[in-house]
Amino acid sequence: STRAVVRAKMARKERKEITQQFTLKTPKGTKDWADRDMVLRSRIFDTITSVFKRHGGVTIDTPVFELREILAGKYGEDSKLIYDLQDQGGELCSLRYDLTVPFARFLAMNPTIQQIKRYHLAKVYRRDQPAMTKGRMREFYQCDFDIAGQYESMIPDSEVLCIAAEGLTALGIEDFVIKLNHRKILDGIFAVCGVPLGEVRKISSAVDKLDKMPWEDVKKEMTEEKNLPVEAADKIGEYVKLKGGVDLLELLKQDDELMSNESAAAGIKDMEVLFSYIAAFGIEEKVSFDLSLARGLDYYTGIIYECVISASAPPSEKPTKDKSQKPTDMDEDVSEYVGVGSIAAGGRYDELVGMFSQSKKSSVMPCVGISFGVERIFSIIKAKEDMSKIRANETEVYVMAFGGGKEWTGFLAERLKVSKQLWEGGISAEFLYKSKPKPRQQFDAADKIGAPVAVILGQEEYEQGKVKVKELGLGENADEGKDVEIEKLVDHVRRLLLTLKQQS
Amino acid sequence: STRAVVRAKMARKERKEITQQFTLKTPKGTKDWADRDMVLRSRIFDTITSVFKRHGGVTIDTPVFELREILAGKYGEDSKLIYDLQDQGGELCSLRYDLTVPFARFLAMNPTIQQIKRYHLAKVYRRDQPAMTKGRMREFYQCDFDIAGQYESMIPDSEVLCIAAEGLTALGIEDFVIKLNHRKILDGIFAVCGVPLGEVRKISSAVDKLDKMPWEDVKKEMTEEKNLPVEAADKIGEYVKLKGGVDLLELLKQDDELMSNESAAAGIKDMEVLFSYIAAFGIEEKVSFDLSLARGLDYYTGIIYECVISASAPPSEKPTKDKSQKPTDMDEDVSEYVGVGSIAAGGRYDELVGMFSQSKKSSVMPCVGISFGVERIFSIIKAKEDMSKIRANETEVYVMAFGGGKEWTGFLAERLKVSKQLWEGGISAEFLYKSKPKPRQQFDAADKIGAPVAVILGQEEYEQGKVKVKELGLGENADEGKDVEIEKLVDHVRRLLLTLKQQS
Repeated sequence: STRAVVRAKMARKERKEITQQFTLKTPKGTKDWADRDMVLRSRIFDTITSVFKRHGGVTIDTPVFELREILAGKYGEDSKLIYDLQDQGGELCSLRYDLTVPFARFLAMNPTIQQIKRYHLAKVYRRDQPAMTKGRMREFYQCDFDIAGQYESMIPDSEVLCIAAEGLTALGIEDFVIKLNHRKILDGIFAVCGVPLGEVRKISSAVDKLDKMPWEDVKKEMTEEKNLPVEAADKIGEYVKLKGGVDLLELLKQDDELMSNESAAAGIKDMEVLFSYIAAFGIEEKVSFDLSLARGLDYYTGIIYECVISASAPPSEKPTKDKSQKPTDMDEDVSEYVGVGSIAAGGRYDELVGMFSQSKKSSVMPCVGISFGVERIFSIIKAKEDMSKIRANETEVYVMAFGGGKEWTGFLAERLKVSKQLWEGGISAEFLYKSKPKPRQQFDAADKIGAPVAVILGQEEYEQGKVKVKELGLGENADEGKDVEIEKLVDHVRRLLLTLKQQS
Repeated sequence: STRAVVRAKMARKERKEITQQFTLKTPKGTKDWADRDMVLRSRIFDTITSVFKRHGGVTIDTPVFELREILAGKYGEDSKLIYDLQDQGGELCSLRYDLTVPFARFLAMNPTIQQIKRYHLAKVYRRDQPAMTKGRMREFYQCDFDIAGQYESMIPDSEVLCIAAEGLTALGIEDFVIKLNHRKILDGIFAVCGVPLGEVRKISSAVDKLDKMPWEDVKKEMTEEKNLPVEAADKIGEYVKLKGGVDLLELLKQDDELMSNESAAAGIKDMEVLFSYIAAFGIEEKVSFDLSLARGLDYYTGIIYECVISASAPPSEKPTKDKSQKPTDMDEDVSEYVGVGSIAAGGRYDELVGMFSQSKKSSVMPCVGISFGVERIFSIIKAKEDMSKIRANETEVYVMAFGGGKEWTGFLAERLKVSKQLWEGGISAEFLYKSKPKPRQQFDAADKIGAPVAVILGQEEYEQGKVKVKELGLGENADEGKDVEIEKLVDHVRRLLLTLKQQS
């Protein structure tokens, strides 16, 4: 009947709508990690973790979301980038924006901990505008090491800088520079340049953009958007172009106006002590004292630093650009001024824990820390790595069965048994999920996953309690294999794998 | 002036309100992990990971949140437990509820992957009612291993069961049982008992509660809440009390009514094949074929299983309870019927990937997997473990300086230098963040973190290019230490640490 045809048509249409009503993708700014990328990333984590442990670090794990009020008022202008959880009845929560604020909350909750070196490798979440931040993800990993406790000035600060240098070196990144500055010096500079006290953070966040845009644009933001007098901006401009080492410190000490500012003088004294420790650690060549470094976050109170590689440096000149050519897709990278950014960064934050503490006593918990940005480090390392040499799996043995004829069972049960024996011996093994597999299929499968050794169950040998162990991947030089008693299989394979490992 | 006093009072009051407007805690159902707990949990992860790798697993990492529509319609009654992210403009997202649906989404997005053994250790999120689930967290870890691909029936299923047994054994848990059932057999039972087709999932989710409540209550739910005729419920009751091994399979094969049901017959055939593989793996004693096992999730299509230990078994009898004593805090565990639950569970889900696939070809991606519940496993292991023997840090050397008198500098720069030398040699080392530390302070600090070796910079020895290396923690048997040339320090310490490790 026509009615039935119409109904069937409608049902089809409805079904089509149901299947098409979702897009098959990960949320914007997030991605899946798999295969060799995943192996490479794990290696980066392992390297960073071992550096952290070498410095006496212990690890903690905090929830991926925090009470919303814990995060409130910690991130300045960037607070708008925080992901909120929906109010489904109960507490209001947000995804963590970094690992530092949760660490400070942890310390405030555990006042018996008066000293800790803690590390934490975990994901953080930022609703960033992709147009401004190509390559910056909304979900990404941070690897943090922080030293909390009351200590003699600048000693933990120097160790954290040492960890920054050691970490990057251990990752095979050699051409980095640690840009270093001090919030107290910056505050002093802003004061002597005539920035009103209430405007300091605003002007500081403009200076922070110097790695993304040229001075002229930063000046424009200060004077036009933030109403700073042109003379004040120009004076700031003279300071923030200064960079160097201990020499710059000497230069600043000659600056009577700056030295008469209490904050600047304290910062310069800190830096003098710090530079002596940096020299003792032998990392002075990696450090650049750079007055243009400001860092965006509100909570820093002392030294601040960023590790950059040459690729992440800002352009020295504004490139000529055809203004008539409008960008067509705002999701694309529209700014030539966006470098890869810093690959590690951090600073001292002496008052963050106190913001969470109810009692006055526990409120004094000075902290200093470093955070490695894994995604950017990953891109740098991947570009240098021969990815084809990375194995996604670690299977050592492929268990096969050879045979034929009417009587041939395929030895599936026997392959399961031998595989189990290998697993229990700590050896990784796979086999073909097929009752009667052909030799070719099994060799192809072993080849595909790159297993270095085959254990072959031949019909006659197996009945005599023996299997053949054969090295794989030798091509024309393939050996004939060696018959091994089943009871001695695990030991034999273990020894063979050790030999192969030593050869490679 | 009075006005100034009033203003100051108001300011104090305001400040007090600001500091008190938040509660210092982690969100409900979440917690921080730290110290020795963290070390023990990491060990559990390492053990499980090495078992997964032994079976050829590769790992992937998916975002912590998914598009909301990806999770929709996958979890049956439990969908209400999903955490949603707030709509802040852009896509609607939710926190992942498990690792299985994101894995299926990953497979649908990557149709070139036709076979994969993937593992994934990560946190999942469920807005569970704490009253029903003491000890169940809202943020918790799952450790999943899944085999995807078209293979001969029951071979991957048997390997996944093998991984369950091997994983728990490797974790030192011996007294576990793998309760095993098959969705097709259950569906067949429901059919022959007269459950209408549309009611099967509802009745199945009632059966699923048999590990938490006695049969009488489950029957009540079926007949009163879900309107199943009493005779049907009674007939189901006869089936779901059956458990055993291959013997039960033989019993079911005698059941002509059940065997005439296509679904049941197919399930029973699967189980017969599976039991032969289980026997080959030698894990038949760990497996209990249990018709009462139903599993809550919608997406299972074949075998289902749960690993339980004796502590997680349901009580055989309803305990007498003083009904007059009302629970005062609904957040407390109000039910004696709540066991620790399963410590690992999983099943076959052949149609989940297809739900995401736009093309028909890629829609056939049968999967079977296992998920270890780390929090419960952690509780079991922690109860048996001597936690005092676990070190939270891995520091091997404490670098000290001894000296005194007017000329004594405290050797801080020298300690930094020696520490750096040790770090570069791959040795973990700490020192006191103090310019002129007393010997006692340094020994106490070394003792507190449990460092096994001290490197001591003595004023005279250091000037001769030597330091003292001393074993710590020997109490009265303390050795005098050994003077070592600074250039040979790393080698010497490395050898000493190796010796100490072999001794312990």
